Amino acid sequence: MSKVTISRKEHFNAAHRLFNPDWTDEKNETVFGKCNNPNWHGHNYELIVSLTGEPDPETGYVYDMKKLSDLINECVIDKLDHKNLNLDVPEFKNLNPTAENIAIVIYNLLKAKIGSESDLKIKLYETERNFVEYPA
Amino acid sequence: MSKVTISRKEHFNAAHRLFNPDWTDEKNETVFGKCNNPNWHGHNYELIVSLTGEPDPETGYVYDMKKLSDLINECVIDKLDHKNLNLDVPEFKNLNPTAENIAIVIYNLLKAKIGSESDLKIKLYETERNFVEYPA
Amino acid sequence: MSKVTISRKEHFNAAHRLFNPDWTDEKNETVFGKCNNPNWHGHNYELIVSLTGEPDPETGYVYDMKKLSDLINECVIDKLDHKNLNLDVPEFKNLNPTAENIAIVIYNLLKAKIGSESDLKIKLYETERNFVEYPA
Amino acid sequence: MSKVTISRKEHFNAAHRLFNPDWTDEKNETVFGKCNNPNWHGHNYELIVSLTGEPDPETGYVYDMKKLSDLINECVIDKLDHKNLNLDVPEFKNLNPTAENIAIVIYNLLKAKIGSESDLKIKLYETERNFVEYPA
Amino acid sequence: MSKVTISRKEHFNAAHRLFNPDWTDEKNETVFGKCNNPNWHGHNYELIVSLTGEPDPETGYVYDMKKLSDLINECVIDKLDHKNLNLDVPEFKNLNPTAENIAIVIYNLLKAKIGSESDLKIKLYETERNFVEYPA
Amino acid sequence: MSKVTISRKEHFNAAHRLFNPDWTDEKNETVFGKCNNPNWHGHNYELIVSLTGEPDPETGYVYDMKKLSDLINECVIDKLDHKNLNLDVPEFKNLNPTAENIAIVIYNLLKAKIGSESDLKIKLYETERNFVEYPA
Repeated sequence: MSKVTISRKEHFNAAHRLFNPDWTDEKNETVFGKCNNPNWHGHNYELIVSLTGEPDPETGYVYDMKKLSDLINECVIDKLDHKNLNLDVPEFKNLNPTAENIAIVIYNLLKAKIGSESDLKIKLYETERNFVEYPA
Repeated sequence: MSKVTISRKEHFNAAHRLFNPDWTDEKNETVFGKCNNPNWHGHNYELIVSLTGEPDPETGYVYDMKKLSDLINECVIDKLDHKNLNLDVPEFKNLNPTAENIAIVIYNLLKAKIGSESDLKIKLYETERNFVEYPA
Repeated sequence: MSKVTISRKEHFNAAHRLFNPDWTDEKNETVFGKCNNPNWHGHNYELIVSLTGEPDPETGYVYDMKKLSDLINECVIDKLDHKNLNLDVPEFKNLNPTAENIAIVIYNLLKAKIGSESDLKIKLYETERNFVEYPA
Repeated sequence: MSKVTISRKEHFNAAHRLFNPDWTDEKNETVFGKCNNPNWHGHNYELIVSLTGEPDPETGYVYDMKKLSDLINECVIDKLDHKNLNLDVPEFKNLNPTAENIAIVIYNLLKAKIGSESDLKIKLYETERNFVEYPA
Repeated sequence: MSKVTISRKEHFNAAHRLFNPDWTDEKNETVFGKCNNPNWHGHNYELIVSLTGEPDPETGYVYDMKKLSDLINECVIDKLDHKNLNLDVPEFKNLNPTAENIAIVIYNLLKAKIGSESDLKIKLYETERNFVEYPA
Repeated sequence: MSKVTISRKEHFNAAHRLFNPDWTDEKNETVFGKCNNPNWHGHNYELIVSLTGEPDPETGYVYDMKKLSDLINECVIDKLDHKNLNLDVPEFKNLNPTAENIAIVIYNLLKAKIGSESDLKIKLYETERNFVEYPA
């Protein structure tokens, strides 16, 4: 039977700051601009989680959307929502919270819970006009 | 010459109910929850149909968007719009109308009309936050 | 101090059918067309509830958005979501569930809970292209 | 001649925290919940500025949209974008940065620049599902 | 009985150019900038038509949305869609096709058809970020 | 390390006309319909440019979104925005400006500037309901 991709959209709000601790303030300012504000700024992140697999013949589901939503909320949203990514989330203690890196962190959080039988993909909107996908 | 994917968005409204006739009412309720309401519920489905091929050098079109819209309306929208998927659409007589299965049914309806020279893909939004793609 | 309007968006899915029991089937079919399907059809309803008042000087809130969301879910969403409006919701036993009438029913459900000090307004999208507001 | 309302949409990203310095930490936590995180959180704010007046018979404009966009950027966006509202914006030194209060601050910033001949109105989305309008 | 506002969204695409024939080319260029391109530019216009009235007790409708859609298509869309507003639409022969003026023209086209018992209002998006409402 | 796709959305407005100079007026009218209007029509084009590569370990960026936005504006938006594609843009002197061909032109404009180490992809919305992707 052929495979179907299912996707669930969730959202979270967070503060963050982009900077590289190995660089001078001047270089951080030059490279990251307004995103380097030491007092932080923030975003409404829109998160789309996709799974690919064959629909179960008994349910017609690749994966129960309600369970997928619950899983995303438990593993990702509760950890990131209304947080300061740099200060409150251990995964970003030594990792710059760019959209690229946030997507990779979310992928790893979910991959541990989703069985290997389902392909997993993350799409993350930092703003309506800037977004990333992982894996490519 | 390189290939381009073109996409056309259409919509339809329908009622449906998720259940497996081989299961007890209790199991249906456990698995499908609110979607198992025997009195039905419904959705505004947003449908995106994509075709991939080389643009015709004389028209610059992969496929005429107007003709694609007409084809989707004739083969899919007229059949599903303002209908009860379980009761009014023969394809779901013995098939649970999950988003996954609706996308597969729409694919098969259109594939019969679209020549094999164009790759066909279906994206179906059941709600703004739940959507599927077929083939994956 | 000046008044501010705050708004909260929620959604629900439901099946319904438009018809007038005092009319013949023919007249119902003529007036309501596809919306008269006796097997029902359905929609994703997007609901925006607005309250107008002066912000509380201690909180800066006209009304706590979290409490407003909880109130809408308790009074409206739990009653209408994944339901057949005609069969499952007593308010529509003798009232045609047009978007206009659904908005009036939602207004009355919430007005009983919202103190008279706050102006209440309902905006209801039946589809992305059809929506109503009450009171006008 | 009759009046027309024109509207221009802009956006900014910011970090903030809701709290009342006259309250205990416990009361702040109880009232503001996750929005009280002392490490901040943030949003993509969508801002719609509306002006009402008679179109100029020579231009057909109520107000030049390009000039309105420039004015919003100079007076509002440059002041709030990629900032911590509590720490970086003097207007919120003693004012809780709720959506209601942000809208009032933006109104006052623009009112000083817009002549009294044009009615001014602010609509501010804190998230897609929470928004405010001032004046009501 | 209380009044309800109903709204229907339609769209059209058109080319136009902003200029005042009583002005020099230099003044037109200064005032209208890129919108003054003598070779034209264009937009996807999103049009929302709103009517306010009491729901008919027999139908529950303020106005049949299907009839409203048909009326907008006959009176407005067929006249403006895929047209050059300045060259193809007589109403703009001596009227600059700003969003403000297009909204007034659409209002007048529909007002002649809508009985005086229903309040009529036009909202017109020239882009996602620029829109007008008439009457204010 | 694994690859991430980043995407940036920009927009432009333009007039155009579809026709094949080798065909009779009748054939152009038959094939292109309303899009063949000799007085032009127009669109708000939404453009999404995607790049795929490995995030730089020092910045966490696949590509700086601000630089990508600047590049798109310099190479594409300044060339196409508020223009007549057929008359003002040399690339369409002998090429029909269908969405497919506009996407290919934009790809070629950007490919010359983006290093070969990053995969480039173009998504172009001609309307909300018609869009294309290149390469497929």
